[in-house]
Amino acid sequence: MTGSDGESADTKTAIMEATYRALCQHGYADLTIQDIADEFEKSRSLLFYHYDTKEELLVDFLRYLLDWFADDLSADADAEPPAQLRGLLERTLPAELDEEAENFHVALVELRSQAPYVDEFREQFTRTDEFLSDTIAAYIEAGIEAGAFRDVDVDETAAMLVGLIYGTMFIRVSTGDEAFARSLRDAVLGYVDRLEA
Amino acid sequence: MTGSDGESADTKTAIMEATYRALCQHGYADLTIQDIADEFEKSRSLLFYHYDTKEELLVDFLRYLLDWFADDLSADADAEPPAQLRGLLERTLPAELDEEAENFHVALVELRSQAPYVDEFREQFTRTDEFLSDTIAAYIEAGIEAGAFRDVDVDETAAMLVGLIYGTMFIRVSTGDEAFARSLRDAVLGYVDRLEA
Repeated sequence: MTGSDGESADTKTAIMEATYRALCQHGYADLTIQDIADEFEKSRSLLFYHYDTKEELLVDFLRYLLDWFADDLSADADAEPPAQLRGLLERTLPAELDEEAENFHVALVELRSQAPYVDEFREQFTRTDEFLSDTIAAYIEAGIEAGAFRDVDVDETAAMLVGLIYGTMFIRVSTGDEAFARSLRDAVLGYVDRLEA
Repeated sequence: MTGSDGESADTKTAIMEATYRALCQHGYADLTIQDIADEFEKSRSLLFYHYDTKEELLVDFLRYLLDWFADDLSADADAEPPAQLRGLLERTLPAELDEEAENFHVALVELRSQAPYVDEFREQFTRTDEFLSDTIAAYIEAGIEAGAFRDVDVDETAAMLVGLIYGTMFIRVSTGDEAFARSLRDAVLGYVDRLEA
């Protein structure tokens, strides 16, 4: 969807929100474009006019999700680097998941598991992970410059944190072991504490 | 399958090997029990006699995989704890994946993504992750006792490593970004180097 005018931007947002609800309700494996249309309050033909397949729609959804995440992080733009890093970890490693968040995590892991079969999913996930890695590296770098973090290897530390964020999400979904997810989250927060100068 | 006698143990091994080949070839999402039967050299009726559904067969496969992994690790039983830990990481975070290993990683991530829908998958993955976590913790504990590792928090360090193993696998499959997977692997090995006393 191109959508430069207000109405089409509204339509796009409504489609993205319908997609979010449908993913929370159905997961990804069995999701149909009809399930998304069922969550869409406007005319179904409008949705089918914009998207032919669920993959096409979901590529746009992944793009929308990354924009939303970047926008959400920008709320911390004026915070100190250690607070920015902790804010990012609060968002990506929540202590508790309510049912909606749990279902959405399940759908995201399913989507990622299907990326080897859909090139455009892989592209979006690569963009997402690069954004996450670059953002974390920028926080660490700024923290070192400000004297708040020790002089650690920036890229190595950012890679570790990205790995731990996805590892926690993946283990959480595949085992449902919330106690382990919490102990992993605590370990990550402890690791960040020890970055401080 | 119970299989205490030699013939049924052979049959079980042959079924498990056929399952491995079918997963490498088809992934999990579209896999049918017929695809597994096609890889099985013995009579198909033997396979269908033992298993009604692909889920049932795959639960046994996950059990078999964990036994195989535990047995593989036991080759390092007499090594020093730091070498045991590095050996485990070599197996779980390989530097390069050939096509077969890459396909098998894809299938494993798909299987884990479906665990929320199949209770017995979740049970097996929980067992697997507990085994991994306990084994890593035992290596670290033995290394501290032997004076080879610093006096780190054993459970926290083990949780970090389990998280990093799965994070690397998950990112590798969902982005295909081998350069990032290698830098993450290097970061993990650097983290282990710094555990040494």
